[in-house]
Amino acid sequence: MYPPSIQKLIGQFSKFPTVGPRTAARFVFYLLKIPKEEAESLQESISQLKEKVRLCSFCFNPFEGEEELCEICDNPGRDKSTLCVVEKEPDLEAIEKTKQYKGRYFILGGTVSRLRKEDVKSLRTKELIERAENPEIKEIILATNSTPEGENTALYLERLLAETKKKTTRLGRGIPVGGELEYADPETLKSALEGRK
Amino acid sequence: MYPPSIQKLIGQFSKFPTVGPRTAARFVFYLLKIPKEEAESLQESISQLKEKVRLCSFCFNPFEGEEELCEICDNPGRDKSTLCVVEKEPDLEAIEKTKQYKGRYFILGGTVSRLRKEDVKSLRTKELIERAENPEIKEIILATNSTPEGENTALYLERLLAETKKKTTRLGRGIPVGGELEYADPETLKSALEGRK
Repeated sequence: MYPPSIQKLIGQFSKFPTVGPRTAARFVFYLLKIPKEEAESLQESISQLKEKVRLCSFCFNPFEGEEELCEICDNPGRDKSTLCVVEKEPDLEAIEKTKQYKGRYFILGGTVSRLRKEDVKSLRTKELIERAENPEIKEIILATNSTPEGENTALYLERLLAETKKKTTRLGRGIPVGGELEYADPETLKSALEGRK
Repeated sequence: MYPPSIQKLIGQFSKFPTVGPRTAARFVFYLLKIPKEEAESLQESISQLKEKVRLCSFCFNPFEGEEELCEICDNPGRDKSTLCVVEKEPDLEAIEKTKQYKGRYFILGGTVSRLRKEDVKSLRTKELIERAENPEIKEIILATNSTPEGENTALYLERLLAETKKKTTRLGRGIPVGGELEYADPETLKSALEGRK
């Protein structure tokens, strides 16, 4: 049995996403090996994160500052008529990197694999409906992943947003740029054929 | 771009074993979601770990206390003539759980995939030779993993310890208990045939 202070930290790291007890133990032994200053710097960073970062009250994107809105939502140059719904923060980052999208975002906070009450509860659906009901918004892009969970979530949102009578769209599916037909799976090819132009 | 306090923590988590930048980002967003108290408790655990845990001056097993030796090394009931060399802490735990081994341990601190100077330097070879030269020790069990790195490391240690003229042994290889021949790979079957009794 590991000593209590090791066991406690293994338990805490095991709660991290994708981390099981074995990986958590590796994290703890890694922390035991690094210099004390490095471990202190990690603690300080966690503390700074919790102190400085807040979530945008419109899109839930994390940002540093005392304002209510993040830089994107606060930017008067952004198109207020389009709302892009993403699963999580890195998806927003990925779309921003394209520099092609000029509207606003909404971070849903996850996906649902089944439409059970407990699963749906973890999503920010109430807030999404509130945003969608704003008359400024003309189009809602459901930019969920092209995974079973992402598709399922998009279908759920489509039904949920039907009452708002807003136009909902999905991202185009097809062969990724640089991708070869030979290696594309049948579902992707089917989408590529349907989406030809 | 993520705000600086998020980026800094992503960089720090990326140094954790098995963690890349994408997983590190997931860790940070997880920390943003949990209550402040939970994040503070994590910081406190890291601080406690660095304060309370020390490495046994004989076997390098981490333990809590002010003593020089861990409970295993300090136990007069343990057989002082056998030394079991393991790669890392969880391997020691795994052998202890069998309750079959009564000797002492030595945590090597890693494996080598190639015998480059830089690789070998990360292992506690100097300390191992020191322990092995103790006249009390009669047998050294090289309990490295049955992976290419583990085998390579064991071969390296065998050569390194040859000068001490101590008997070195390896763990038995073969079909795992509950394992089926049909699914055993040829190398395992070969070892099982060679190790038949």
